[in-house]
Amino acid sequence: MKTTRKQKKIAAALLAALAFTPTIACAADPLPSWNDTAPKKAIVSFVEKVTKEGSPDFIPPNERIATFDNDGTLWCEKPLPVQLYFALDRVKALAPQHPEWKTNEPFASILKGDLKTAAAGGEHAILELMMATHTGNTTAEFEQIVNDWIATAKHPKTGQLYTEMVYQPMIEVLAYLRANGFKNFIVSGGGIEFMRPWAEQTYGVPPEQVVGSSVKTKFEIRDGKPVLVRLPELNFIDDKAGKPVGINQHIGRLPIAAFGNSDGDREMLEYTEGGNGARFMLLVHHDDATREYKYGAEAKLGTFSDVLMAEARDKNWTVVSMKDDWKKVFAFEPQPIINPK
Amino acid sequence: MKTTRKQKKIAAALLAALAFTPTIACAADPLPSWNDTAPKKAIVSFVEKVTKEGSPDFIPPNERIATFDNDGTLWCEKPLPVQLYFALDRVKALAPQHPEWKTNEPFASILKGDLKTAAAGGEHAILELMMATHTGNTTAEFEQIVNDWIATAKHPKTGQLYTEMVYQPMIEVLAYLRANGFKNFIVSGGGIEFMRPWAEQTYGVPPEQVVGSSVKTKFEIRDGKPVLVRLPELNFIDDKAGKPVGINQHIGRLPIAAFGNSDGDREMLEYTEGGNGARFMLLVHHDDATREYKYGAEAKLGTFSDVLMAEARDKNWTVVSMKDDWKKVFAFEPQPIINPK
Repeated sequence: MKTTRKQKKIAAALLAALAFTPTIACAADPLPSWNDTAPKKAIVSFVEKVTKEGSPDFIPPNERIATFDNDGTLWCEKPLPVQLYFALDRVKALAPQHPEWKTNEPFASILKGDLKTAAAGGEHAILELMMATHTGNTTAEFEQIVNDWIATAKHPKTGQLYTEMVYQPMIEVLAYLRANGFKNFIVSGGGIEFMRPWAEQTYGVPPEQVVGSSVKTKFEIRDGKPVLVRLPELNFIDDKAGKPVGINQHIGRLPIAAFGNSDGDREMLEYTEGGNGARFMLLVHHDDATREYKYGAEAKLGTFSDVLMAEARDKNWTVVSMKDDWKKVFAFEPQPIINPK
Repeated sequence: MKTTRKQKKIAAALLAALAFTPTIACAADPLPSWNDTAPKKAIVSFVEKVTKEGSPDFIPPNERIATFDNDGTLWCEKPLPVQLYFALDRVKALAPQHPEWKTNEPFASILKGDLKTAAAGGEHAILELMMATHTGNTTAEFEQIVNDWIATAKHPKTGQLYTEMVYQPMIEVLAYLRANGFKNFIVSGGGIEFMRPWAEQTYGVPPEQVVGSSVKTKFEIRDGKPVLVRLPELNFIDDKAGKPVGINQHIGRLPIAAFGNSDGDREMLEYTEGGNGARFMLLVHHDDATREYKYGAEAKLGTFSDVLMAEARDKNWTVVSMKDDWKKVFAFEPQPIINPK
């Protein structure tokens, strides 16, 4: 059979269309897990205006800094923050070396599985727990412990690895910003050395772009090898008014976009907003009682206060309703029903 | 006149040759200000082996971290470190607001131009001087002060701007590493906020890749605007055993190459050397009494001790003789004769 000139033209057009479809689809929707509601439009509109050369809102690539809180903003922080599960598992692993923990709080209650009594010690108990489980080793040893733990530890409700409990819509935002010349930083109250081992693979954020709370470390030569020893002494708490301090210390310039989910992120968003030029501030609101958890503003639970919600509304910050604005919450299928009605 | 086919061919060949010449020259010698001595060969050989895919020494781009001391490694630190000149000029600028400085040391001597007496107060006097001249303002105000100063302040011997007093061979190393996928960090005992305002333009090192000494800062809302106030309290000293601590805090992984010039850099080089895989450690030795300054090992002056020199020789670190290994020291022409014979 002889192909006519017209047939050849049609075939070429079809091939061209096929070849271009994926590109077009990708360019058309960098945020496929978001519903077409206001937050998605606000993100896309911001990115387009700051990246468009000649636009009055254009911002050069080296100044495109975006900061992200981690717990509750990039991954699930309920029923408890992941790092607390890590600390509890460390108590169990270290208990044989600490016979005194059988009687000392909060360790005694933790070992009995009674978290309520353990938590009664308040901030002091948490600090003691963190120091006992996060220090006394070298930075390299601690990294290995975190790597081993994160590779197997699972969320108590979904049975998924914690690194699967990351919000797919936010992963898309990270990738979208990166593709548009942004440098993404994590700025979290969590431990800097707890996040770094897995943040690069999970979020595409390298260790040098992770800012977090830390303990002091000390340089030593052990067996002829230089090491940094993790001391049981707080160095920095990267939360609330500490977030702008941490941002300045690590990044040295103002973010142009900041993403959070709680009162711990308020000052980071205010600090970001205070810069000159186009700025973008976003808060994730946990109002999805079925697919995730309902807490924070209106639910009167957690640390997204009604006061913060009022500030966000007043200042036109973008507030994401997980229920209404996210098509899916996690990448895995089927989506979990964490709290069946 | 009609051009023949042959003429056209020759013209095309010439054009092609012209077009390619600069590229070839550049590829052939990324370090034109270095003599063809051992240090240059060591740098090129290291970069080639870690960037060659399939090589046993290959290191992926995200792990190609290089750290550089600043004073004496990237720019001239004599007769005095540049930041000290900045502090002295600040004393003069602030004196009208501090009548008590007329009698209080080290300020009284500084205002009289008597640095010897001022220096007699030792470390305590230097710390007091630094706190008095580097704090009490916001980070944005301090940045502006540094920018204004660095734009006009000049080296007392050459009359060149301090940003011209950078070592051209080291600028070439920074560019060469960057072109080979390295991320360059400054890791200096100098003030982090003193270096950041000009490091990007001068070294191609953005603020988030500058590690240095710092004071504590505090988040405040002033006149409705969020600011960070610089407090007269030391936060971190990024020198000696502090350098590995600062590297871990800011970068979170080991450098694969480190460049210094003094005992203050010893631990940074040891820490770098302690990692697995190919590593490169370099010390700049100030032995050029004519074009720059002669100090450090053998000269029995400054902080490059004979002990460090012995360690460097023992461990096969690269030691650069400014006199023998550098074709030129500074980019400007004519090269200065700082200390005529």
